[in-house]
Amino acid sequence: MSVPTDEPVAPDESSVIETDILIIGAGPSGLYGAYCAGFRGLSVAVMDVLPQRGGQISAMYPEKPIFDIAGFPAVRGRDLVDNLVAQAEPYGPRYLLGHRALHITHATDGRPVVHSEGTAVRAGAVVITGGVGTFTPRQLPAGEGYLGRGQVYFVPDPVEHTDQDVVVVGGGDSAFDWAATLAPIARSVRLVHRTERFRAHRATVDKVRALGIEIITDSEVSALHGASRVERIEVRHRTTKATRLLPAHTVVAALGFIADLGPLKDWGLELRARRIAVDTRMATNLPRVFAAGDITDYPGKVRLIAVGFGEVATAVNNAATVIDPEAALFPGHSTDKEN
Amino acid sequence: MSVPTDEPVAPDESSVIETDILIIGAGPSGLYGAYCAGFRGLSVAVMDVLPQRGGQISAMYPEKPIFDIAGFPAVRGRDLVDNLVAQAEPYGPRYLLGHRALHITHATDGRPVVHSEGTAVRAGAVVITGGVGTFTPRQLPAGEGYLGRGQVYFVPDPVEHTDQDVVVVGGGDSAFDWAATLAPIARSVRLVHRTERFRAHRATVDKVRALGIEIITDSEVSALHGASRVERIEVRHRTTKATRLLPAHTVVAALGFIADLGPLKDWGLELRARRIAVDTRMATNLPRVFAAGDITDYPGKVRLIAVGFGEVATAVNNAATVIDPEAALFPGHSTDKEN
Repeated sequence: MSVPTDEPVAPDESSVIETDILIIGAGPSGLYGAYCAGFRGLSVAVMDVLPQRGGQISAMYPEKPIFDIAGFPAVRGRDLVDNLVAQAEPYGPRYLLGHRALHITHATDGRPVVHSEGTAVRAGAVVITGGVGTFTPRQLPAGEGYLGRGQVYFVPDPVEHTDQDVVVVGGGDSAFDWAATLAPIARSVRLVHRTERFRAHRATVDKVRALGIEIITDSEVSALHGASRVERIEVRHRTTKATRLLPAHTVVAALGFIADLGPLKDWGLELRARRIAVDTRMATNLPRVFAAGDITDYPGKVRLIAVGFGEVATAVNNAATVIDPEAALFPGHSTDKEN
Repeated sequence: MSVPTDEPVAPDESSVIETDILIIGAGPSGLYGAYCAGFRGLSVAVMDVLPQRGGQISAMYPEKPIFDIAGFPAVRGRDLVDNLVAQAEPYGPRYLLGHRALHITHATDGRPVVHSEGTAVRAGAVVITGGVGTFTPRQLPAGEGYLGRGQVYFVPDPVEHTDQDVVVVGGGDSAFDWAATLAPIARSVRLVHRTERFRAHRATVDKVRALGIEIITDSEVSALHGASRVERIEVRHRTTKATRLLPAHTVVAALGFIADLGPLKDWGLELRARRIAVDTRMATNLPRVFAAGDITDYPGKVRLIAVGFGEVATAVNNAATVIDPEAALFPGHSTDKEN
């Protein structure tokens, strides 16, 4: 596609994508936003730095049942994501996965242009559904050399750890949940935590104890060993300094996350409590830029997926009236759709 | 239950119900609000003037697929309502069906008291999810004497019309949808409309024509006849004044609805475009009274069920912090719930 010279697209941006709505973030709000845009006839692209769709759900708890999605007494994370993808699919959203939204400019006609590595997307409007923003797992200091070689931060697919020796490091719900999930699959599961207190819910801790999983407290992982991959780890007691060697094909560092707006911090967005401030239309202070879901803030904001769904519907339909001032705010009743 | 004398409860209100949250309106937003309240440990009552749960969905299109509920590529109206009821059920909401919310007072401790016929509900907070408000079907002038005796406004259960002669009056989507739904079930289906133009979508009209349903235009139902129930109707051409007699066990008057806030108009609620004005917490101008769903208005409001779901989650969780100022706004992650 040719690039007009008066458009702020860098020379090394070989591809310029045109779309009515660009959604930044392929988590649940972003996926539902793609449906909302498609339903009213707008073309839509969805960009996400992660290689898969579903945001935090896919990355962190795809197997967990979620109980607070309206209309689902319970739904497994992975199924919710699959359903959202299927719901948007008839409208052919273009997914730009593995793309980080780096910076934003505005074309001469006022349309925003979002720049990623080697790609620019020129949109009628942008809707940011970036969740907690850039989401960096806390590192396991001893594990850095083995990242991708047995040291992981997530357990998206427990079956990959069949018959392995696994050590989970951490004291929160994720650590205990993964330990419990892996217990019937792995050859051995141990949990290492630096104190005797756990952030995880009592019932979750009790469940792990009942499974007979060894919980090693007051201890840290002091070293990882192995040739091409981790094979065993050294665990050191924080007081006695006594060390133990444990077999480990996989070390899951479940030490929490550092959430950060990342490059969005420099877009000139008005912030509120380190989130993006929005009005009741879900408009930000930047022209033609809206936001929805956990990344937004306003008085009384409740960070639930259901609230994000409502917000992104509001954002996309208000964006539609900005792209085309003749367009109606109300998209029409879906029950009137032809089959 | 005894009634303290300093509480504004009328002497004829034999029962006073105490609850943390009173939701007014058992449509989809109200039902999801009941879940949200229950999830965070609040007792909840749900009042609705209709005898069944589900609001407009149950009354008007229980059999229609809905395509815009997040996470459901398609869901039949009746199934969505059933799911929402099931989702709230573990928390034991108290349903006050067939009760119209007539007026509101405030107890000496500031808690709102909502009065219905013979019943008062004293709540920590009230959340109004009244949809379009009081919802009055437009009457068929000739049909008044046969209401409940063959003249109906809705077709909640098409099977009830098996082997009947049915006449549907109206030119909108509901009229055409009901005609199409009844065609394979009823003995005969005819559609009468006063002009040759239809508000219904073209595809819906074409579908009815393809089913061979007789469409009688430029005509009105001028009289209903029958002993205990309607047996036949007279249809008169508006120009020629020629009349026809048609067999009819059921006459469906699908002439649209008059929506009105009803008694809520006199509660002192601040209105905006004939809806209840709310802030970003979904708080109204009345103390401890919140609102959510189609009945609310604010700049950029989009009237979709998904938006109502998000709003009621916001309303209930903000109400929780008003009932108990120590309570956290965020209800917790449902994925941490014990099974």
